[in-house]
Amino acid sequence: MEDLKKLIREVPDFPKPGILFYDITTLLKDPIGLHRAVDALANHYVGRKIDRVVGIEARGFIFAPMVAYRLNAGFVPVRKPNKLPAKTASASYDLEYGKDALEIHQDAVSTGQEVLIIDDLLATGGTAAAVAKLVKSLGGHVAGLGFLIELEFLKGREKLSEYQIHSVLKY
Amino acid sequence: MEDLKKLIREVPDFPKPGILFYDITTLLKDPIGLHRAVDALANHYVGRKIDRVVGIEARGFIFAPMVAYRLNAGFVPVRKPNKLPAKTASASYDLEYGKDALEIHQDAVSTGQEVLIIDDLLATGGTAAAVAKLVKSLGGHVAGLGFLIELEFLKGREKLSEYQIHSVLKY
Repeated sequence: MEDLKKLIREVPDFPKPGILFYDITTLLKDPIGLHRAVDALANHYVGRKIDRVVGIEARGFIFAPMVAYRLNAGFVPVRKPNKLPAKTASASYDLEYGKDALEIHQDAVSTGQEVLIIDDLLATGGTAAAVAKLVKSLGGHVAGLGFLIELEFLKGREKLSEYQIHSVLKY
Repeated sequence: MEDLKKLIREVPDFPKPGILFYDITTLLKDPIGLHRAVDALANHYVGRKIDRVVGIEARGFIFAPMVAYRLNAGFVPVRKPNKLPAKTASASYDLEYGKDALEIHQDAVSTGQEVLIIDDLLATGGTAAAVAKLVKSLGGHVAGLGFLIELEFLKGREKLSEYQIHSVLKY
């Protein structure tokens, strides 16, 4: 999988000075790169019962639905506040400065369902931990968390130590 | 395809009074509904050369990548300003009050490529027209525009009369 890294563009000082941004748009536009990335994420779970795949607005909406399609599961969006039209459950999480919140439809996951959380990037793990909490609050079981890229130096795994984590590319 | 409508939740007065919102999350969470919706969008283009599938932030990121995966094409995101990290092209479009802008990476589409634009909803067509303009500004050919839902009474097709349009469900 390491050669997938060649398709990821490294952009220095984005979105602010000192940050090295891993731009996956160069991988996504490549038909073979896209297919290999989705399959590397999804194949890890083939043969297991996965009922729902959850993705987080906005970039997380890219991979999670493709993984759901590949695994014959349903897709569930987690969105910023006031975007989902029916009754929601909400969880807040810490940002560098202040807090933000995420919402999920209350009827998106049923008790006992196996739920996979997929995102493009595991950084500090704060968002993923909030999403896992939302899934559990609806009675779902977190079957695992899958990421295309894991930034190991940010130690996101420590915040998610109770879950199974699968990442395709590590930096 | 009309029975897919049964999986779409109608929410009155969202996001504001007098608007009937077609909530596709109830379709997305259904594994069979998700698969049938993606295939109904994608199968229309099977056998044609499609190089890139473009999706628009945020809800447009859900279907466009799945269609790209299904058609063995690449996926290209169109985003709100200042989200894409490399050099972009920009197009503005009219909102009910004021204007907004969308961006695409300049290197996302090459001259002569066949580009499909996929979104969940065709309403007034303003966003789709702006995205088609962006694709053409990069030298791409708009192979078609595909929508899960078309709100016919808003006459979006009139604004997109120069393009081939395919919609799965009409209201």
